[in-house]
Amino acid sequence: MTGPDAKATAAVLDQLAATLATRRGADPSESYTAKLLARGMETCAQKLGEEAVETVIEAIKLDAGSGKSEKLAAESADLLYHLLVVWTAAGLDPAQVWSELARREGLSGLDEKAGRKG
Amino acid sequence: MTGPDAKATAAVLDQLAATLATRRGADPSESYTAKLLARGMETCAQKLGEEAVETVIEAIKLDAGSGKSEKLAAESADLLYHLLVVWTAAGLDPAQVWSELARREGLSGLDEKAGRKG
Amino acid sequence: MTGPDAKATAAVLDQLAATLATRRGADPSESYTAKLLARGMETCAQKLGEEAVETVIEAIKLDAGSGKSEKLAAESADLLYHLLVVWTAAGLDPAQVWSELARREGLSGLDEKAGRKG
Amino acid sequence: MTGPDAKATAAVLDQLAATLATRRGADPSESYTAKLLARGMETCAQKLGEEAVETVIEAIKLDAGSGKSEKLAAESADLLYHLLVVWTAAGLDPAQVWSELARREGLSGLDEKAGRKG
Repeated sequence: MTGPDAKATAAVLDQLAATLATRRGADPSESYTAKLLARGMETCAQKLGEEAVETVIEAIKLDAGSGKSEKLAAESADLLYHLLVVWTAAGLDPAQVWSELARREGLSGLDEKAGRKG
Repeated sequence: MTGPDAKATAAVLDQLAATLATRRGADPSESYTAKLLARGMETCAQKLGEEAVETVIEAIKLDAGSGKSEKLAAESADLLYHLLVVWTAAGLDPAQVWSELARREGLSGLDEKAGRKG
Repeated sequence: MTGPDAKATAAVLDQLAATLATRRGADPSESYTAKLLARGMETCAQKLGEEAVETVIEAIKLDAGSGKSEKLAAESADLLYHLLVVWTAAGLDPAQVWSELARREGLSGLDEKAGRKG
Repeated sequence: MTGPDAKATAAVLDQLAATLATRRGADPSESYTAKLLARGMETCAQKLGEEAVETVIEAIKLDAGSGKSEKLAAESADLLYHLLVVWTAAGLDPAQVWSELARREGLSGLDEKAGRKG
């Protein structure tokens, strides 16, 4: 964020992915990310699942009138962070996912692609 | 994507979010997204949960030596698409999530923030 | 169920597990269970995850005042059915799970055991 | 368990449910169950989701040749315990779930019922 006028964009995910990549092999005592990565994929994937459940819960609460959109944003941020940790643990280049999304948008529309799938 | 040399970035998520926003109130028969949104938050949140489970499964398979990184990328793309659908259903501005992630990175490091949380 | 006065008990799970065991190797076109088992563990585990998400959603809705206890019971039944399908796919004897639960109850109380764990 | 010859049955779930019912309103410092119930449905449902993810992970690992059936049994026991905690938090009588399962088995076969559903 360069100033109060800058609107945050999804580019923060590429910055975050770059930061996470530096945590591979780092001392587990120095950061939460390094600790997760040191414990291995099973722990990372489990956390991803937990955060997804929490995001689902916030979405349902919001819909039922007993939630807050700030909480949905915070849980979504947690979910995205842990998804990027899984990619880091797997050695997956984020660009592979962005390309996949761009391909679906570009070729035939994500809607149709997703429609065919599910 | 502006050409074959362009590397895909997370910016595709902002484009996708903009596309999804146009589907609110659209004819459900015309796109998968419009159908999901017409069915309401419960369906959208349920799909998010399903895609998270599939992403977890691919991550575990990859780790066990019986998966493919292309499949993890594809499942991750599905997960991100359905997360953005939930935001659309909730009327949540993606910038709220990007700001939250930027704030954590900027203030004290996402690692520490996440560490404090759990 | 032996009559209108009989109160249903958890014993139905042992009956269900016995039924499911007969579906292993059966013609996939003849029953939903045989189809799931023929598709393999990944499909069975994925369905388990989906039903868990639906049960979580019903529990949250009920808590928020927009759900029904009948729906929570129905989703729980779906979840239990798919859990037993996973056991069947894995060749896991249900008695192994019942023993584990009985052991925790008997030795030191499930509460304490669970407390130590999480 | 009354002796080495007794085979564990699903009846342990009815015993467990009875135990859990006594924890409603109990001092949260005295048992893990009382603590969960005191924190409310959201925490209980969240734990259910987490245990489901762990069960899915063990099932996939077992299938990939890197798991153990004992671990699947243990995770399944955790999942069942937390499902019963959710029922307790919701004031749901377990017999409602057993009846639902018995009804499906008795009327038309759970297979067909489930097939119609999904």
